[in-house]
Amino acid sequence: MPELTQRLAGHIAGYHDAPLDPAALTVAKQCVLDWFGVTLAGLEEPVARILREEISIDARGRSSVVGCALRCGTADAALVNGATSHALDYDDVHPLIGHPTAAILPAALAVGEAEGRSGIDVLRAFLAGYEAAGFIGSLVMSSHYARGFHSTATLGSFGAAAAAALLMNLDAAQVATALGLAGTQAAGLKSMFGTMAKPFHAGRAAANGVLAARLAKRGFTANTNVLGVAQGFIATQSDADPSKDAPMPRRGCMVVDTLFKYNAACYLTHSTIEAVRMLREKLALRGPEIASIEVHVAPGHLSVCNIQAPRTGLETKFSLRHTAALAACGRDTAAIGTYSDQNAIDATLNAVRGRVTVHGDRPQGHDAHVVIKTQGGKVAETTLDVGIPDRDLGRQGDRLAGKFRSLAVPVIGDARADQLRRNIAALETLPDIGPIMAN
Amino acid sequence: MPELTQRLAGHIAGYHDAPLDPAALTVAKQCVLDWFGVTLAGLEEPVARILREEISIDARGRSSVVGCALRCGTADAALVNGATSHALDYDDVHPLIGHPTAAILPAALAVGEAEGRSGIDVLRAFLAGYEAAGFIGSLVMSSHYARGFHSTATLGSFGAAAAAALLMNLDAAQVATALGLAGTQAAGLKSMFGTMAKPFHAGRAAANGVLAARLAKRGFTANTNVLGVAQGFIATQSDADPSKDAPMPRRGCMVVDTLFKYNAACYLTHSTIEAVRMLREKLALRGPEIASIEVHVAPGHLSVCNIQAPRTGLETKFSLRHTAALAACGRDTAAIGTYSDQNAIDATLNAVRGRVTVHGDRPQGHDAHVVIKTQGGKVAETTLDVGIPDRDLGRQGDRLAGKFRSLAVPVIGDARADQLRRNIAALETLPDIGPIMAN
Repeated sequence: MPELTQRLAGHIAGYHDAPLDPAALTVAKQCVLDWFGVTLAGLEEPVARILREEISIDARGRSSVVGCALRCGTADAALVNGATSHALDYDDVHPLIGHPTAAILPAALAVGEAEGRSGIDVLRAFLAGYEAAGFIGSLVMSSHYARGFHSTATLGSFGAAAAAALLMNLDAAQVATALGLAGTQAAGLKSMFGTMAKPFHAGRAAANGVLAARLAKRGFTANTNVLGVAQGFIATQSDADPSKDAPMPRRGCMVVDTLFKYNAACYLTHSTIEAVRMLREKLALRGPEIASIEVHVAPGHLSVCNIQAPRTGLETKFSLRHTAALAACGRDTAAIGTYSDQNAIDATLNAVRGRVTVHGDRPQGHDAHVVIKTQGGKVAETTLDVGIPDRDLGRQGDRLAGKFRSLAVPVIGDARADQLRRNIAALETLPDIGPIMAN
Repeated sequence: MPELTQRLAGHIAGYHDAPLDPAALTVAKQCVLDWFGVTLAGLEEPVARILREEISIDARGRSSVVGCALRCGTADAALVNGATSHALDYDDVHPLIGHPTAAILPAALAVGEAEGRSGIDVLRAFLAGYEAAGFIGSLVMSSHYARGFHSTATLGSFGAAAAAALLMNLDAAQVATALGLAGTQAAGLKSMFGTMAKPFHAGRAAANGVLAARLAKRGFTANTNVLGVAQGFIATQSDADPSKDAPMPRRGCMVVDTLFKYNAACYLTHSTIEAVRMLREKLALRGPEIASIEVHVAPGHLSVCNIQAPRTGLETKFSLRHTAALAACGRDTAAIGTYSDQNAIDATLNAVRGRVTVHGDRPQGHDAHVVIKTQGGKVAETTLDVGIPDRDLGRQGDRLAGKFRSLAVPVIGDARADQLRRNIAALETLPDIGPIMAN
C-alpha cells in the first residue's frame, strides 16, 4: 500500500480525466462567484492595499491582481488575491479546512491565467485542491487547529499546491513532490487572529502552493511522503497517527459541504438573522407590526455578539439585537454598507431593536431559536443552524447572486458586475479565464 | 515587564546605535566571507539553478542574485541566495540556530542593496538578526528541533526579519510586528533532509523575513507577542513555557560561537581530518612514511561515515579512512574537487588509506582521538572536537580565507575572488554593498 501522500497525489493527478460531479461543479462555480464578490469588496482594506503596494514594486508577469490593472508573477498574484479575498472574513467556510476558497482558488486562477488554461481546467483544479486540503483536514482536525495552527494557512497550502499542480500537468510523482514542498512551507498561527496576518495567511497559503507546484514541475525534490513520514506534517502538527490508513475522498464530496456567509456581520449572528428572515417571510412582516422577537442562542455567544445598544457600525456587527432588527425590517444584511454608523441610530431599526430580547439558553452550537410575536397576536417560531450546508443548490445560487451584487456593484458597477457573474456562470465553457480576470 | 517579543524587538531596534563588539564584527565578516565562498561554489547545484530559473521569469528589481547578472525583487533575491548558500551544506553552524548565515545574511544583503545601505549597516543588521534567531533558539531548543522542525528555516525566519527590519529603520513596535509576521510564516520540516527542500528552507526563511519587515514597515499588523502569547510560536512548536522570562543576550555574544566547516565532507569526518592535519604538522609528515593511523570516534559515527574502501567521489565524503588519508597526504580537504572519483582510486591516497583503522569506542559526541605511528617509530596522538568555536580569530580568518579561495576561484577566477575577499575584509568601510554584490 503506497504511503498516504503518494495516494493523495494519485487522487489529485487522477483529476485530469475524472468525470466531474454536476453538483460539485455547480458549487465550485458558486465558490468562484462568492470569492469574486468578497475580493472586490475587500480591495480597499488595508491588508489588500499594502500587499498590492508591496508586490507592485517589481511587478511584471502574467497573472492579474483582481480588481485593478496590475499584473505580476504567479505567486505574487496568488498572495495578493488570497489575502484580499479573506480581508473581510466574509468568504466561504468548510469545517475540515477553515476558509477553503480564499487559499485555493487564487492559486488556481493565477496559474490558470499564466498557463492559458480553460475555465473547466481551473474548476477541475479547484476541486482537486479543495479535496486535497479537505482530505488532510479529515486526518489532522481537530487537534491541528486546537494546537494553535490556522488551518486555512496550513491545509490551504496543500490545497493550493494540488490545484496549481493539476493546472501545470504534473504527474502523480511530481504532485507528491509539490505536496512535500507545500507541507514544508505550511505555517500560520491562530494567535494572529484579529490582525492583518489572518487574511495574509490565506494569501501566503496560495503563494506557497503555487511555488511548490512550479518548483516540482522544474524538477525540484522534496520528501514525497510529507503526510505519513516520521516528523512530517501530520506527526509534527497534530495528534493524529501518520501511519494510519485512510481512504481517498469520493470526488466532489468536499465542495458540496461549503458553507457560505450571507451576512456581513459576526458569524454567530447568522443563524439569528436567517431565522428572523424566514419568519418575516412566513408572517409577511414589514417591521413596525412586530411586538417582540425572542432570540435563544448558546450562552457562549453572549460574550461575543450581544452588544445591547450598539452606537457604531462596527458595534452593530456584534449585536444580536441589531442584526435581528435589520433582518426583521428587510434590510440587506449581505451588504457591508448596511453596518453603518447611520444605521446604528436609525429610528425605524431602533424601534424594532428595542423589542428584541436575547437569551443564552440553547445547548452549545451555532443554531438559534427565534420566536416572533406580532401586535396582531400572531406567533411564529423556528430553529435555524447556518452550519448545515444547503442541499438546494438553486436556492443557494440565488442567494449568492444577491450577495455578489451587494458586494461587487459598489466596486465595479452594475454592468461589469453582471458580466462577471454571467462569465462565472458559464465558466466551464470559457476557453481561457481572461474574461473573469480582467476586472 | 513587557512580553518577550516586545523586549526582543527593543533589543533589535537598539542595535541602531549600540556599539559593536570588535570580535563580533570580525566573526560577522568571517561569516560573510564564508557565505560568499559556499554560495559561489553552490551556483550550479540543481536547487540553485531551478530557483534562479523560477524567479527570473518576472525578474525586475533592485537586489542581486549572487554570482550572475540577474537582479530581482528583494524577497526573491533572498530566496535564491539563501537556498544557493545552503545547497552544498558547507555553510556555517550555530548550535542554537542551525545554519545561521544562510538564512539571515541573504535577507540583510537583499534589503541592504535595495535600500542603498552601507557595509557597516549590513553587518550590524546581520548581528541583530543572528542574535534574534539565537535568542529564540535559546528558548525553544532542543525540543523544537526534536519535534521535527528545521530550525534553520523557523528561527532563520525570525533572524532574517530582524536583520531586514533594522536595515529598514523599523522602530521597536514595528520590529515586534515583523517578528510576528516572521513567526506566522516560520515553517520547515526535518523530514525534508536529503532533498532540495533542505537548502530551500534557508532561502524561504530569508524571504519570509524580508517580506515580514517590508510589510511591517508599510503598516501591516500582526500579533506583536508572537513568542509569549498563547498559541504563539513557542507554545505551538516547542516544549518551552512561553510565559517564562529570559534576559536579552549580551550584544555580539552569539556570532562569536559560529562554527565553520572546513572540509567538504560529512561533518562527522571533520574532527578526524583536523586531528590528522594537526599531527601531520607536528610530525612533519608527508604521507608515505606513515605506518598506521588509529581513529577513535563514537560508535554512532560508524553507520554514517565509515565506508572502508570508497569507489566514488561521493563515497569518499562518507569515509573516515579516506578523509584521514587526504589529510595525512596534505590534500585540500576544503575543495569540493578533492572528493573526486579519480581521488577515490588514487594510488598514493589508497596506500595511506590502507593503514587507517577506525574504532567506534569513544563516548557519544563529535570528537575524534587519533594516534599516528611513523615507520621510523615516532608516535603522536591528539583528541580534537570541531564542535568547539575557535577563540583565535586570526587563525580562523586565515583558514576561512583558504577555504574561500578553494571555493570561489574555480567559479569567478583568481582576481575577482581576491577582490571580493578584500572588499569583505573592509566591509565596515564600504558606503554601499554594491562592490560585494556585483560578482
